Amino acid sequence: MDNQAYLKSKPLTLSGKVGGPFPAKPRSRRQRWEVKPSEMSRNTLNPIRAIVDGMKLIPNPAKPMISLSIGDPTVFGNLPTDAAVLQAMKDAIDSQRFNGYAPSVGYLRSRQAVANFCSRPEAPLEAEDVILTSGCSQAIELSIGVLCNPGDNILVPRPGFSLYKTLAISMGIEVKLYDLLPEKSWEIDLQHLESLVDERTSCLIVTNPSNPCGSVFSREHLQNILTVASKLCVPILADEIYSDMVSSSGPSLASLSSEVPVLACGGLAKRWLVPGWRMGWILIHDRNRVFGSEIRQGLVRLSQRILGACTVVQGALESILNDTPPGFYSSTISCLQSNAEICFSELSAVPGLNPVMPSGAMYLMVGIEMDHFPEFQNDVDFTERLVTEQSVFCLPASAFEYPDFFRIVLTVPEELMLEACGRIREFCRAWYRPPSCDGNDLDQ
Amino acid sequence: MDNQAYLKSKPLTLSGKVGGPFPAKPRSRRQRWEVKPSEMSRNTLNPIRAIVDGMKLIPNPAKPMISLSIGDPTVFGNLPTDAAVLQAMKDAIDSQRFNGYAPSVGYLRSRQAVANFCSRPEAPLEAEDVILTSGCSQAIELSIGVLCNPGDNILVPRPGFSLYKTLAISMGIEVKLYDLLPEKSWEIDLQHLESLVDERTSCLIVTNPSNPCGSVFSREHLQNILTVASKLCVPILADEIYSDMVSSSGPSLASLSSEVPVLACGGLAKRWLVPGWRMGWILIHDRNRVFGSEIRQGLVRLSQRILGACTVVQGALESILNDTPPGFYSSTISCLQSNAEICFSELSAVPGLNPVMPSGAMYLMVGIEMDHFPEFQNDVDFTERLVTEQSVFCLPASAFEYPDFFRIVLTVPEELMLEACGRIREFCRAWYRPPSCDGNDLDQ
Repeated sequence: MDNQAYLKSKPLTLSGKVGGPFPAKPRSRRQRWEVKPSEMSRNTLNPIRAIVDGMKLIPNPAKPMISLSIGDPTVFGNLPTDAAVLQAMKDAIDSQRFNGYAPSVGYLRSRQAVANFCSRPEAPLEAEDVILTSGCSQAIELSIGVLCNPGDNILVPRPGFSLYKTLAISMGIEVKLYDLLPEKSWEIDLQHLESLVDERTSCLIVTNPSNPCGSVFSREHLQNILTVASKLCVPILADEIYSDMVSSSGPSLASLSSEVPVLACGGLAKRWLVPGWRMGWILIHDRNRVFGSEIRQGLVRLSQRILGACTVVQGALESILNDTPPGFYSSTISCLQSNAEICFSELSAVPGLNPVMPSGAMYLMVGIEMDHFPEFQNDVDFTERLVTEQSVFCLPASAFEYPDFFRIVLTVPEELMLEACGRIREFCRAWYRPPSCDGNDLDQ
Repeated sequence: MDNQAYLKSKPLTLSGKVGGPFPAKPRSRRQRWEVKPSEMSRNTLNPIRAIVDGMKLIPNPAKPMISLSIGDPTVFGNLPTDAAVLQAMKDAIDSQRFNGYAPSVGYLRSRQAVANFCSRPEAPLEAEDVILTSGCSQAIELSIGVLCNPGDNILVPRPGFSLYKTLAISMGIEVKLYDLLPEKSWEIDLQHLESLVDERTSCLIVTNPSNPCGSVFSREHLQNILTVASKLCVPILADEIYSDMVSSSGPSLASLSSEVPVLACGGLAKRWLVPGWRMGWILIHDRNRVFGSEIRQGLVRLSQRILGACTVVQGALESILNDTPPGFYSSTISCLQSNAEICFSELSAVPGLNPVMPSGAMYLMVGIEMDHFPEFQNDVDFTERLVTEQSVFCLPASAFEYPDFFRIVLTVPEELMLEACGRIREFCRAWYRPPSCDGNDLDQ
């Protein structure tokens, strides 16, 4: 291109030989249209899209499709948000007080409402500790954005939510995957985690309750995580968007340590069943004053790039948090718990599958004994055929960097959960091959 | 720090001498807390905040404050949005169809509604040409983000809206400021513009109608801009958030060229008077297929980082665009036009001030003949004293890279506009110094 530009810019009378020791300085302007997408846009990769878009997802026309793939609790209509939440929104609209710009970090009163709602005696919060964001995704983006420079690395769970990697790679930040242990209810392999840390490790991401695992860490395990973070001096980004979507609520990371600084990301999406409303927040826990004012100011600066959440939702936030009846939350949890039990029990009886019982969030992970399904190369292949034969779509866990598993979303109506499990059983029975006598084969 | 880490990691028994030709490899982990905000967060600078936060803004207690500084049409309550807009939002909430995740680029139906609304025979749009964003700010962020790499440069108007620079600098993109000419109703100095272009120029930002100038380019001037962009092969980011907020509507950039690719950024904020709702969009105009599928895919990828606009507003969008009565728009424009005439006429009569009559948007720029106000160092000093003496706050145009001007927001009720102009006149009369006979002074 440079050379071409040079050739084109030479006077016509000098056509012929090109070169010489001191060629005229090339014109430093474009001579033709050449608009390419930026490196960052090319490096913004969504592994779920990359995998799903490549799958052959033509369902069996004889069976209606059951999609257990998307972490959106609203798609089946069985889990509507509460009437109080809708009323709060309509009141906010009628008031006409929430049409103008809010401060980029959110209305003070809405931040105070979140602080009051999320505050615990061991981890108190004030309005100034809260930054409202456009969904929990932006909370995670700002948190990674303020803590990490290009060339730094972050510690991300495997299996784990893909957005961390999508954001980090696009910012030139290296991702180091630490293992979760399915045999220990997806606890963190702390030894593995510790082995990954170096000087450029600027953030440890902990997802609790977990997407995609549905696991909830015990108090003791959280304390062990904090001990490692404290020893290695790595701040924590706690993704707590599924916070309190558990049958028996446990402590948050921040409530167990006054030493380790934590940016806790949350929002309305899951617990209030309105993920499209894009209402998220960052809670700044820094009782040891490690973040100090600098990280706070950095977050404020970053929030000024595109401003934050829709003011109508911000205006409704105080009422949403305070007026939603407790029965709403518990009924959602009952539904998820019941589906988890059905799904675990049904799939436990299926040859070749190893479901892991969850204790929170809205997911259940299922291991595939690939040895017993020689017809399929991997989890992508397996779940693809499950669609074409049984019209059941589960996300292959390769999308979470965890091959040979698949993830089931538990937000479906009970009859669909049962129907889906039945079809998965039928599928597995058709393709399951019992263990061959490999030893004997080799001897012969 | 490295050295300290090394010392600490040495076994205690080896205390004493340090050094030697081959010291043990220092432990490559942090030994104490040291969390610093990222470069990007430190480089995300909002010049308006930087200037305003440094100003002494203590109003004269004898006079109620009139703030003409913030580009938010909702603050005075005289310009409410239309009842149809509010009803569309409440209908969207009641339908309960807009609580789940939308595609990251927005609901297809909402994109189609924007395409229909913004389509022109000369610049037709389909749903696929529209990307919905979290406010026009995110539209601008994604557009710069997809077109520019670190080390590239973009062309930005001076005076101009500060967000372009804020975003660009934080992304490592150089900003080249091209001049607008107040004596030519703020037309672009095209010669100056052209002189700035080089191989790394990846985007020309054109704000029309202009913030902070309130200018609207003629068809002829837009054609001249397109000719330059075409000659230099630089794509255009057209910030058209004030589109159609003009007394006599002119053409858009994209409608005048099928050759130059344009990303046109807009949204509900200003024309529908709901800036807090964060509903923006990018219109992809690419009839010459310069962007091709690559730039479109890049925008889609970037939109997946934090997803886009609140689904409730997306759900209301079709009705907002189609059902808002025409009288609503014209009454807003009448109010702005009337205030512009009052303000221009009042301030034209003030010694030392040179207001520039706007023809659109909601701003008016006023030049200060600083020679005649020797008491004040610059526009910041001038506007600061205007607050402390007259309780009138106008934004010094240094915030738009244009010293010795200030910007007036025209969205105030008429009586406040008159009152503010009266106070500005009083202030100027008090501080104006007539021209001294410099020539004679020098002779003596």
